[in-house]
Amino acid sequence: MIEICTVGGYSEVGKNMTAVKYKDDVVVLDMGLQVDKYIGAKDENEDDIIDANELLGQGAIPEEYFIKNWKKYVKAIIPTHAHLDHLGAIPYIAANYDADILCTPFSSEVLKAILKDRKADLPNKIMTLTTNAVYQLNKDIKIEFINTTHSTPQTVMVAVHTPEGSVLYCNDFKFDNFPVIGEKPNFKRLRELGKKKKVKLLILDSLYSHLARKTPSESIAREMLRDVMLGVPSKNKTVIVTTFASHIARLKSIVDFGTKMNRKIVFLGRSLAKYSYAAEACGIVKFSKSVEICGFSSQVKKILRKIEKQGRDKYLLVVTGHQGEPNAVLSKIVDGRLKFRLFPEDHVIFSCTTIPNALNIANRDILENKLKALKVRIFKDIHMSGHASREDHRDLIHMVNPEHIIPAHGDISKTSNLIDLAQELGYELGKTVHLMQDGQRIDIR
Amino acid sequence: MIEICTVGGYSEVGKNMTAVKYKDDVVVLDMGLQVDKYIGAKDENEDDIIDANELLGQGAIPEEYFIKNWKKYVKAIIPTHAHLDHLGAIPYIAANYDADILCTPFSSEVLKAILKDRKADLPNKIMTLTTNAVYQLNKDIKIEFINTTHSTPQTVMVAVHTPEGSVLYCNDFKFDNFPVIGEKPNFKRLRELGKKKKVKLLILDSLYSHLARKTPSESIAREMLRDVMLGVPSKNKTVIVTTFASHIARLKSIVDFGTKMNRKIVFLGRSLAKYSYAAEACGIVKFSKSVEICGFSSQVKKILRKIEKQGRDKYLLVVTGHQGEPNAVLSKIVDGRLKFRLFPEDHVIFSCTTIPNALNIANRDILENKLKALKVRIFKDIHMSGHASREDHRDLIHMVNPEHIIPAHGDISKTSNLIDLAQELGYELGKTVHLMQDGQRIDIR
Amino acid sequence: MIEICTVGGYSEVGKNMTAVKYKDDVVVLDMGLQVDKYIGAKDENEDDIIDANELLGQGAIPEEYFIKNWKKYVKAIIPTHAHLDHLGAIPYIAANYDADILCTPFSSEVLKAILKDRKADLPNKIMTLTTNAVYQLNKDIKIEFINTTHSTPQTVMVAVHTPEGSVLYCNDFKFDNFPVIGEKPNFKRLRELGKKKKVKLLILDSLYSHLARKTPSESIAREMLRDVMLGVPSKNKTVIVTTFASHIARLKSIVDFGTKMNRKIVFLGRSLAKYSYAAEACGIVKFSKSVEICGFSSQVKKILRKIEKQGRDKYLLVVTGHQGEPNAVLSKIVDGRLKFRLFPEDHVIFSCTTIPNALNIANRDILENKLKALKVRIFKDIHMSGHASREDHRDLIHMVNPEHIIPAHGDISKTSNLIDLAQELGYELGKTVHLMQDGQRIDIR
Amino acid sequence: MIEICTVGGYSEVGKNMTAVKYKDDVVVLDMGLQVDKYIGAKDENEDDIIDANELLGQGAIPEEYFIKNWKKYVKAIIPTHAHLDHLGAIPYIAANYDADILCTPFSSEVLKAILKDRKADLPNKIMTLTTNAVYQLNKDIKIEFINTTHSTPQTVMVAVHTPEGSVLYCNDFKFDNFPVIGEKPNFKRLRELGKKKKVKLLILDSLYSHLARKTPSESIAREMLRDVMLGVPSKNKTVIVTTFASHIARLKSIVDFGTKMNRKIVFLGRSLAKYSYAAEACGIVKFSKSVEICGFSSQVKKILRKIEKQGRDKYLLVVTGHQGEPNAVLSKIVDGRLKFRLFPEDHVIFSCTTIPNALNIANRDILENKLKALKVRIFKDIHMSGHASREDHRDLIHMVNPEHIIPAHGDISKTSNLIDLAQELGYELGKTVHLMQDGQRIDIR
Repeated sequence: MIEICTVGGYSEVGKNMTAVKYKDDVVVLDMGLQVDKYIGAKDENEDDIIDANELLGQGAIPEEYFIKNWKKYVKAIIPTHAHLDHLGAIPYIAANYDADILCTPFSSEVLKAILKDRKADLPNKIMTLTTNAVYQLNKDIKIEFINTTHSTPQTVMVAVHTPEGSVLYCNDFKFDNFPVIGEKPNFKRLRELGKKKKVKLLILDSLYSHLARKTPSESIAREMLRDVMLGVPSKNKTVIVTTFASHIARLKSIVDFGTKMNRKIVFLGRSLAKYSYAAEACGIVKFSKSVEICGFSSQVKKILRKIEKQGRDKYLLVVTGHQGEPNAVLSKIVDGRLKFRLFPEDHVIFSCTTIPNALNIANRDILENKLKALKVRIFKDIHMSGHASREDHRDLIHMVNPEHIIPAHGDISKTSNLIDLAQELGYELGKTVHLMQDGQRIDIR
Repeated sequence: MIEICTVGGYSEVGKNMTAVKYKDDVVVLDMGLQVDKYIGAKDENEDDIIDANELLGQGAIPEEYFIKNWKKYVKAIIPTHAHLDHLGAIPYIAANYDADILCTPFSSEVLKAILKDRKADLPNKIMTLTTNAVYQLNKDIKIEFINTTHSTPQTVMVAVHTPEGSVLYCNDFKFDNFPVIGEKPNFKRLRELGKKKKVKLLILDSLYSHLARKTPSESIAREMLRDVMLGVPSKNKTVIVTTFASHIARLKSIVDFGTKMNRKIVFLGRSLAKYSYAAEACGIVKFSKSVEICGFSSQVKKILRKIEKQGRDKYLLVVTGHQGEPNAVLSKIVDGRLKFRLFPEDHVIFSCTTIPNALNIANRDILENKLKALKVRIFKDIHMSGHASREDHRDLIHMVNPEHIIPAHGDISKTSNLIDLAQELGYELGKTVHLMQDGQRIDIR
Repeated sequence: MIEICTVGGYSEVGKNMTAVKYKDDVVVLDMGLQVDKYIGAKDENEDDIIDANELLGQGAIPEEYFIKNWKKYVKAIIPTHAHLDHLGAIPYIAANYDADILCTPFSSEVLKAILKDRKADLPNKIMTLTTNAVYQLNKDIKIEFINTTHSTPQTVMVAVHTPEGSVLYCNDFKFDNFPVIGEKPNFKRLRELGKKKKVKLLILDSLYSHLARKTPSESIAREMLRDVMLGVPSKNKTVIVTTFASHIARLKSIVDFGTKMNRKIVFLGRSLAKYSYAAEACGIVKFSKSVEICGFSSQVKKILRKIEKQGRDKYLLVVTGHQGEPNAVLSKIVDGRLKFRLFPEDHVIFSCTTIPNALNIANRDILENKLKALKVRIFKDIHMSGHASREDHRDLIHMVNPEHIIPAHGDISKTSNLIDLAQELGYELGKTVHLMQDGQRIDIR
Repeated sequence: MIEICTVGGYSEVGKNMTAVKYKDDVVVLDMGLQVDKYIGAKDENEDDIIDANELLGQGAIPEEYFIKNWKKYVKAIIPTHAHLDHLGAIPYIAANYDADILCTPFSSEVLKAILKDRKADLPNKIMTLTTNAVYQLNKDIKIEFINTTHSTPQTVMVAVHTPEGSVLYCNDFKFDNFPVIGEKPNFKRLRELGKKKKVKLLILDSLYSHLARKTPSESIAREMLRDVMLGVPSKNKTVIVTTFASHIARLKSIVDFGTKMNRKIVFLGRSLAKYSYAAEACGIVKFSKSVEICGFSSQVKKILRKIEKQGRDKYLLVVTGHQGEPNAVLSKIVDGRLKFRLFPEDHVIFSCTTIPNALNIANRDILENKLKALKVRIFKDIHMSGHASREDHRDLIHMVNPEHIIPAHGDISKTSNLIDLAQELGYELGKTVHLMQDGQRIDIR
């Protein structure tokens, strides 16, 4: 019998955390933040020192007490990738467990940068494992990292192999046959697991399980960028692009086309610097060769003065602030807080979607209205998602042929669509496909 | 003074028709159907013989009486491209004018095929002019075809040059820098017109003038198709693709990837046959080399029996019915009217969007529900539009630098967004940018 | 132990049917149609003779085989009210059970009218029980009808009392404190059941459990009608009202205000006649005193001719066709099929909402466009729903204080919101609140 | 010839201002704020002293320079009612004109309260005129106030009578046949103007001209309130209602039902106090008899402590904050800033809609999520609008039978729907119905 506790991310989108127990060993998969609530909590604490209790009160981190009686058994904490909703709670609660952290090199670099930012330290050892590698946790349990694609590098599906079968945890993933950096997902290994009937339980990201499609490849977002960056005349104009700081593949495309535009490229904003350095540290990209990276406010101000002097049309500005965050670089520029004016028909390219919660929608709306008042050209939605859709979910289920399925990454409004798909494929609700909520447990036999 | 009558397509989307009068000469630009109303009229007339009066009563063709007193002056009828909302009314009303029809070869072929279908003939002479060519209509007026991109081949912007300046008619167009077939738009000539300050009046498609973007290139739709056709396992499965019959570039991509899938390709449905043959006739593609084209019902039935016998996974079926039309091939297959069953996990790829009117939405909804009941895999919205967006409109206006602007291709809810853009660029409503409705006239001095 | 089988209406909206088994007795609650699919099935069978097998194939009636092994135990079939999605399958499958039908007098009259229409007969005895009455089914089981409000008269909540506790079935209901006809819900009895802790299981309509409100009273719809019928000048104009034929309270308001307008009132259409006569037969209203009711086509045509002659502004026309159904009286008038023209500024009042499925939306859209083309004045959405909202659900749960809850009347997208509410009130998913799908069983201990 | 300058409110919703010039006399109708931008401007100025220049820069007040050359001719400034978007700019710019302010008593009281708040004074004389009264401005011009209904008391339509015909300004209005306070609109006078063909130009509120309905009466909102306040059990619960402070009729209904609930009523918040006192001052209501009105923060805190002590279920709290404004009383309570806790199943009734701009939507979303987290019961949308809909617009046009029409109260997306209606009634765009934008002028002959 394998026991599962769905600690977080099953009653809302965010703060992913799942515990897998086999005999006296527990493996914790992901330990993430609910980012909106985290930001809310930070906003009320201007000095920026927030402790775990406060975050817990705000609902920003997973509720550990759901696995209180498993605490001493936890042997490993395994974030699947570098997004905050998967590893962002580690600085706050990992120390409560006598367990190593196991992740890919990029996630490790990001985690270390976050800890450095907070001037914090962790007692847990951070161990790295490359994609497609295997780690023998102890006599009974083997951990396998299976390469997948997503919107940040070195994302893995994690297989927890036990003598009674494997738990395959795929949260988040995308099936990209034409990735811009990194390898395709390791379909071969997934099919192998399926053929050998090894997968007792599949836990998978159900966010877009209502969309009748295969999520389009990142290479398509790249083509859309090419179209907008190289296909629209921008002579004498300031050109600004904004995207997710952790999306290294997207940044690479931006840098590639910026180079073709014969513009010097600058990255402006703390998170852009943080993720770029992490990606360089593990050899994924070499941005620093061709990009001037300005993480600190003072650097940003200095380079903007230089750009003013040398000519704005000699530069491509890549900035933070794609969701209209009031304190990111883009909002600061627009509000005149950085003394760098935008003129009519300058370009602002949003290589992202608006993440649909009320605050982002309002922030973006306010930002776009200000841009319109400045008569700036706006290019929106130059983006493809990093999450699988219904037809990818189907392909994954066929490949690994699991006995049981638990949909993750959202409340019932999301997971119910994956349940519907599983039922179409012959699974039965309550028997082989399971609707879980935060804090519930289930035994898989 | 140049006089303009906005005959049709200014109070709704459809039945485009605009008359340009200079002294005693009138040029008619487009003569299209309102396709929804046309279909409505046809549905009530099972024998399929509909005359102009009936169509007029249904609002399916432009109301000629708006230019009754100009009738004898009409010297040329010029459809810009082969879509029905631009040339579909020619068979019904062109004979009322003692005027030649002037269009590109592809439009000419399509027009002839439509006439043949109706067993009708036209007294008007159909003359072809290649893209980027010029035709001297008479002493005063020169007609120039300027190459542009759109969702059907050989679409042109038409310049009507008069001694008092030019009217540039751009309805419909898209600015595609990476077209799949044909050349890029003739930006050079557009800029030239702008520099010489020749354009007295620009009439342009405003359909998507509310969208803050540049319309993505057709090459991106091609990549999306590649992703779905080559990236999803389809062994032993029937694969069906449906798209706009007139969209030859899209069909070319489908044929290219179908070939890579090692499947024989068949086109099923009358309109697919009609447009494919037209494209071949003027040398745009050579589908008949690699595709079996079955226009007639009897051919469709015969080939489907053959496919059943030889193995469905040896074929790629390209069919009509992307909007869920009840009598197109896709609906017939799904309803079992063609004795060709679909099985669970067969693929149906919609390389289109649902054109958002209530009837299409209902038809598609009904069709998709039937497909779901059959447990077929659905891949939707593998598509990019053929219409320019706000940032393309801006580029066009900058290039040609017109004195006056009239937005076309829709009612006030569409055109008002282009007026907004024009105002942002310094035009004044009522003075240099004009809100027109069906049947109104304006003098441009 | 009480066993429940959720036969129909738990995986979609429609074809409600639930079986309650205690020892060797089974009570079937509701036996309804999925009306959209029923209409689909009828459309393909022009001669109008459809049998149960065909309807089953189309998914239009509940799938009895889910309770095949309970068949011989069924002792009673109890439709809660007269809507087709609750009693419409009785003519097709009730005969398969050796069981009486038990319902309120109005439901009984409607059922008999439906049977007469189909020229069918039923072996089952139809017994009536008044609201708030109790019926001893046998030694173990007592059936109680508890009065509630809804959008049709004599709707009841059904309590199935067993020695091990009661199942309370509330599907559909509304809590209306100011009903236009009939009594308020029997809150006293509901509270009594709650205080005595008798309710083992509550099954309830969850359709609007996402709406943060109490559903407004029918008296408010009445005021809205007053506002539109008496407050807008209608001299010399034709005035048409259309609403749900089974909504006797709404019809009463229409008749009341029609009388105040000094117009003679006519009901046009088969279903209006059927439900009106049923309501009269059990003494709910006396429409025939003040209304001319024309059910048959010939009657409709005759009265319309009379109206033409005597003056259209002397009449108020109440007609079928509120959802834009192509063959209802309203569509026939608009299409000219009844030779009764509408003129500019005539009134058409829709005392309903558009039931949101694609077909209704398309039908209504088409109808409204035709009305607009005729320049008719349209008054939409003069309506309040007959279904409880989230705050009514909460009140019901507090009143009856059930041990277990099963949300009904929809798939997971509907029921999940009621699960959310139940969780807010302390119920636990999988333990005391249960997510059921069509065909599942559960034992309540 | 009468000249019109549409100064503000024709290119967006807000800052209404229209100037009517006849010979050497100019009458200014309305002088309002764009409230969102006004709040934006205030937020950036914590000391709360904002001057006209700053507001002008933010687009929060009308741009007077559009009528610079008419400045010396302005003889009267006439706000139609007490809403800020109609009179809120008076404190900032009225002093620039040597002109009296002419309004109804309630508007006058509100205006004085605003001036007092700002510790400001105005050189202009404030004169009051009762509804349905006439004022002879000078030899040529007579001003007539025609009573209408709206969502604040003593709203008037203003007729500016000149020897060459009248301008009738109806911005804002509603046609309520069953108002809760005040009289019905003066339909008799409107019809009289129509019969005598006096109305040269009608300027009217077009905000809801796309809605196919007559706006429901305020009496219906009252019934909805009754239903929720008296129909839902609230024993031992805190009950909070929030609505528009200027909506005296709504407040009266709340007070009436609060009294029936046997609860003492308190009004909490500055704007509630301001408008209530204004309404009392001119004899519209006598709230102070039955309501404790607490405008100042200190009063609010004191009464809340008293309520805690005496029992929260003995009170009905009417509070500011219906749009989720972060500094209104409701948000302060929810955030714990007033030390008055809410408990599970307390009631919060929103007698309003969310005004649909991004900031309100976000604020309300955030507020409602906090309320849900507290498990408070939410009753939303207990409201009917104060703005006319399409069928009311039609009735007004028929009554007054104007020669010309100008739609007001919004940009082209709003006004275009009224243009559509006017065209349906035979008016011609550009000839008799005019699309105006901020700052444009037109001569009416």
